[in-house]
Amino acid sequence: MRMYDIIMKKRNGGELSEQEIRFFTEGYTRGEIPDYQVSALMMAVYFQKMTEQETLALTMAMAESGDMLDLSEIQGVKVDKHSTGGVGDKTSLALAPMVAACGIPVAKMSGRGLGHTGGTIDKLESFSGFSTALTREEFIRNVNRIGIAIMGQTADLAPADKKLYALRDVTATVDNLSLIASSIMSKKLAAGADAIVLDVKTGSGAFMKKEEDARKLAEEMVKIGKNAGRKTIAVISDMDQPLGYAVGNALEVKEAIDTLQGKGPEDFVELCLTLGSRMLMAGGKAGDSSAARKLLENAIADGSACRKLAEFVEAQGGDPQMVFRPELLPKARILHPVPAPMDGYVSRIVCDEVGICSLLLGGGRETKESSIDLSVGLTLCRKVGDFVRKGEPLAILHANDAEKAGEAERRYLGACILSDTPPARASLIRAIIE
Amino acid sequence: MRMYDIIMKKRNGGELSEQEIRFFTEGYTRGEIPDYQVSALMMAVYFQKMTEQETLALTMAMAESGDMLDLSEIQGVKVDKHSTGGVGDKTSLALAPMVAACGIPVAKMSGRGLGHTGGTIDKLESFSGFSTALTREEFIRNVNRIGIAIMGQTADLAPADKKLYALRDVTATVDNLSLIASSIMSKKLAAGADAIVLDVKTGSGAFMKKEEDARKLAEEMVKIGKNAGRKTIAVISDMDQPLGYAVGNALEVKEAIDTLQGKGPEDFVELCLTLGSRMLMAGGKAGDSSAARKLLENAIADGSACRKLAEFVEAQGGDPQMVFRPELLPKARILHPVPAPMDGYVSRIVCDEVGICSLLLGGGRETKESSIDLSVGLTLCRKVGDFVRKGEPLAILHANDAEKAGEAERRYLGACILSDTPPARASLIRAIIE
Repeated sequence: MRMYDIIMKKRNGGELSEQEIRFFTEGYTRGEIPDYQVSALMMAVYFQKMTEQETLALTMAMAESGDMLDLSEIQGVKVDKHSTGGVGDKTSLALAPMVAACGIPVAKMSGRGLGHTGGTIDKLESFSGFSTALTREEFIRNVNRIGIAIMGQTADLAPADKKLYALRDVTATVDNLSLIASSIMSKKLAAGADAIVLDVKTGSGAFMKKEEDARKLAEEMVKIGKNAGRKTIAVISDMDQPLGYAVGNALEVKEAIDTLQGKGPEDFVELCLTLGSRMLMAGGKAGDSSAARKLLENAIADGSACRKLAEFVEAQGGDPQMVFRPELLPKARILHPVPAPMDGYVSRIVCDEVGICSLLLGGGRETKESSIDLSVGLTLCRKVGDFVRKGEPLAILHANDAEKAGEAERRYLGACILSDTPPARASLIRAIIE
Repeated sequence: MRMYDIIMKKRNGGELSEQEIRFFTEGYTRGEIPDYQVSALMMAVYFQKMTEQETLALTMAMAESGDMLDLSEIQGVKVDKHSTGGVGDKTSLALAPMVAACGIPVAKMSGRGLGHTGGTIDKLESFSGFSTALTREEFIRNVNRIGIAIMGQTADLAPADKKLYALRDVTATVDNLSLIASSIMSKKLAAGADAIVLDVKTGSGAFMKKEEDARKLAEEMVKIGKNAGRKTIAVISDMDQPLGYAVGNALEVKEAIDTLQGKGPEDFVELCLTLGSRMLMAGGKAGDSSAARKLLENAIADGSACRKLAEFVEAQGGDPQMVFRPELLPKARILHPVPAPMDGYVSRIVCDEVGICSLLLGGGRETKESSIDLSVGLTLCRKVGDFVRKGEPLAILHANDAEKAGEAERRYLGACILSDTPPARASLIRAIIE
């Protein structure tokens, strides 16, 4: 088998066999096939697309290129949740304790934030002492004992995907649905869950700006998951404005705790209930979504979800007191309001820009090596559709540097568009694909 | 300017500016832009094509990436001839002395053979002592003194093309008309001639199998040449069977000498007269093709073309006696006939396969490092349309190894297709594009 022939076949619109896909994926991972042949192939894939069978074969080859996590020692149906990422997306922080309180084991790998999107691990580190550096044994023991463990992604999880993604990133071959779907799903499959609930975001703050594209990506991922023998469901949700009101690490933790205490913002609560009910159904804990929602609502009402968060934080070395006294979380020194420049309805909040405000304040990483300030960020005071009078705050910036706050204020004013008439409201949950 | 943006622009169907094309061509040649980005761009070009302006810009950037030969010290209009390559294509060997005898200075760079096609330099080395290792000064002095000099291609002629072609060759991005045309033309432009006559081959032995593709390539090259300010004419000629009867280095030299002595095969003579008359017209030596043909025919009839070959061979250290006594050329020990397996008309001679027969006998290079046997090859006894009786020879193999001869015989029998009815004859000259 020769890489040249594989490139030529795809270039000419042919369908690659599983053998051919394994040949290049494994050869590339081992460093035997050079970057320049793989980038040419990726560009050919961009133009000629991949079939369902090819996409599955690539996903499996990448998943199996490194460690395949074996979660069989964990009792029960392991249900994983994955979000394609957004601004203010603190879903895992609230959802994991909610479903764990309902008996679904959460054995999750998470990542750190990069650019304008945050990462679950960074957010969790707002609890002083918290660590995701667990051994495999501790990880499994914790899940069996308290129902949740979250660890950092190991270096050897789908290394083929890591290498291929880095190459696609510099050769303008990222945006192909099959390649995006296989990249996400290879890591999910390697991470060993029995069922996967995907939160596919759409809108200005999402990777998929258009709902139609988000839907196609969701369908592609659900197909891969099913073809790989895992129960897979995708929820398409709005990311045209930040989720909830808080953006920034400790601020988002606070909002997640509020939610577990029954005081969460409407959109965020709704997303948690939607995703959570699908997780409970996938895990066999509820027969339909209204029964599942009831279980989740009870876990909030009776305090069990909030206690689960505290147990989890404690089990990974964090201070559980902070769950019940969130005022102990890292706090910024300066509260800097962003006043509305005129009366009007908030018609748009450009989501990426809000993420960049938090980044400017020091709450995100410009590069993988940057250090971050967990205390900073912003809390929105008005969301899309809300009316504001001139001078009333659109948002409060939480800063430790007055100059940066000024810069973030200018940026926020550009991101928050006011108009005379109320905008049409977009629904949060756009579709469920299973 | 970033290479990423250039790839993205081309991928999305945009037209690259001259600046963008120079940026990547120069950056790649200097080793500052990595192979993997350039191969992705080449694949995007394969799908999105290049406009006339882009193709010209790429050609000029590659031509100017190394030495631009200055032939201004040579008197007269310098006319170069280039063939896209074929089997039995000994055109330069006869044509250069013919046009030189008519007063057109021939200052030519040539290459060696690779794979199933031969190279002019290898063929010329059949004259013992002949060398193409001339200094620039010797090269120009020889052209001014006797009218012809042929040197090997210098390492620094269009190095960008060399690097880019090598990359395209391993990433399935060779067959794009603009890229092929710019690769050929960059070297021709750098080689400094005032006018260029292109022999674009079509058929089973040519790079362009289909006449339609050959025509498009010819049009593309003529456009580039004209846009670059050089008089450029293309002749589209048949390469569906070998040109003439001889295939193999010394055998082809012998056939070229026969042609200069008025005993050449009809098709080969016709091609030389067609290309030669266009060269004479481009060089201002004749007003129309019939006048030009007369000049060329005279140069053969009065022996001046043949004497010119001898002068040229002598000037580059070769033995001029061999021109008048071709029996002194390298000769193979074994003459091995390939008898026809049945009565019939030769309906097809698969051209590449004939080249491979010569390669099998030792007359070609498998890799750049292989050494070659100048004496071996084959002489066809029947060409397409000829009738043969069972047992009569289809060709004579000239070999130095009986086992290889047996192998080449089997191969030749597969390449030479017989049928009961005479085939339609294809014309040798398909079109002239100017």
